Amino acid sequence: MSVKHSLPGDIERTSLAIIARELAARGIEIPPEHQAVVHRVIHATADFDYAASLRFTPGAAALGAASLAAGGTIVTDTNMALAGVSKPALARLGGAAFCYMADPAVAAAARAAGTTRAVAAMGHAAAAHPGAVFAVGNAPTALFALCDAMERGDFRPALVIGVPVGFVNVVESKERLMEVCQRIGVPAIAAMGRKGGSSVAAAICNALLYTAAGQLDPAARGW
Amino acid sequence: MSVKHSLPGDIERTSLAIIARELAARGIEIPPEHQAVVHRVIHATADFDYAASLRFTPGAAALGAASLAAGGTIVTDTNMALAGVSKPALARLGGAAFCYMADPAVAAAARAAGTTRAVAAMGHAAAAHPGAVFAVGNAPTALFALCDAMERGDFRPALVIGVPVGFVNVVESKERLMEVCQRIGVPAIAAMGRKGGSSVAAAICNALLYTAAGQLDPAARGW
Repeated sequence: MSVKHSLPGDIERTSLAIIARELAARGIEIPPEHQAVVHRVIHATADFDYAASLRFTPGAAALGAASLAAGGTIVTDTNMALAGVSKPALARLGGAAFCYMADPAVAAAARAAGTTRAVAAMGHAAAAHPGAVFAVGNAPTALFALCDAMERGDFRPALVIGVPVGFVNVVESKERLMEVCQRIGVPAIAAMGRKGGSSVAAAICNALLYTAAGQLDPAARGW
Repeated sequence: MSVKHSLPGDIERTSLAIIARELAARGIEIPPEHQAVVHRVIHATADFDYAASLRFTPGAAALGAASLAAGGTIVTDTNMALAGVSKPALARLGGAAFCYMADPAVAAAARAAGTTRAVAAMGHAAAAHPGAVFAVGNAPTALFALCDAMERGDFRPALVIGVPVGFVNVVESKERLMEVCQRIGVPAIAAMGRKGGSSVAAAICNALLYTAAGQLDPAARGW
């Protein structure tokens, strides 16, 4: 059965062409500077709702890609998002990715402060990697913690990707992120509304990494 | 800001109550034996389309949970799905989870056979863990490989979770899975159509693990 032996790179190109065609058929125009991110999120979810829900502060995608092209660091809020970030692309750019959710010191700090591990992990990461790209796909509390730190003025990341998923405080966390980032001039990308998740967070990181690395051969991405 | 300090377990209970209420408001009735899986997938995606797209062979959810309650193994097709599977719940049940996508021997086998790593990884896993729960959230080729092995009669897993996402061969892979599994009597759960992904695969595994473990305290799940 020949379908089984299609190469992943061919399938990806075909998939992205289908996505572009279906967006056009729906009359949806994505600004060129947002296409890499929007197309890759739809590729990761098969959900065209993201064409409408993804929001960018001016230049956010280009600024995020530029940070990663310069060997910038990525911090994620879950190990699942971390697992989805392309390590070959990161390695090619001289970058690295971190998640502190499973760090025993973070769990102890959360207990001591009476907060969640997600909040403690972001506090730790903001101190350790103050200029990184921060990608939050799960915990709205992590996004609120980043907003608090940015408003205090002691934290200025290269980009915040705010795509937590869910039903409690999620919508509000993304609205606050965009308001704070627009006001203080930190680049941000968010999926407004309830939808998002670790797959979406990883897809946005990878879109920026691939943009940063030029057109990496898919084989070099570890597919 | 009190929203930041809500406990993850409270948020999860509130979220699942919202999901049940909104399903009722939409006039959607989920059979009781499917609720744990359907509700948790909606929890992981905020996408109510899964209420219609998730399909189960008779007893599939109960049979999958029973396998995991007996210390059964989970095999995933991506490290991202593996990262999303609850390790505390698995440990409590005496089970384990594996993904062979990054295994150097699998990469070598794929090159030697002229196939994809996803197919080679499933071949390796089917031989190493023939009675496991197999969860495929990414590669339709992995699902086709499992179907081939089941049809040859030399492979009879406890359950196949077929939720790859995408635009090429994805719909067909899930239709073939359900046809093969219904015909030969292997339990299967699939998200028909294009949608799915590693988050969905992990959510289904976790729904079965939590069912198997009874009502695990959320703190014991590693949140």
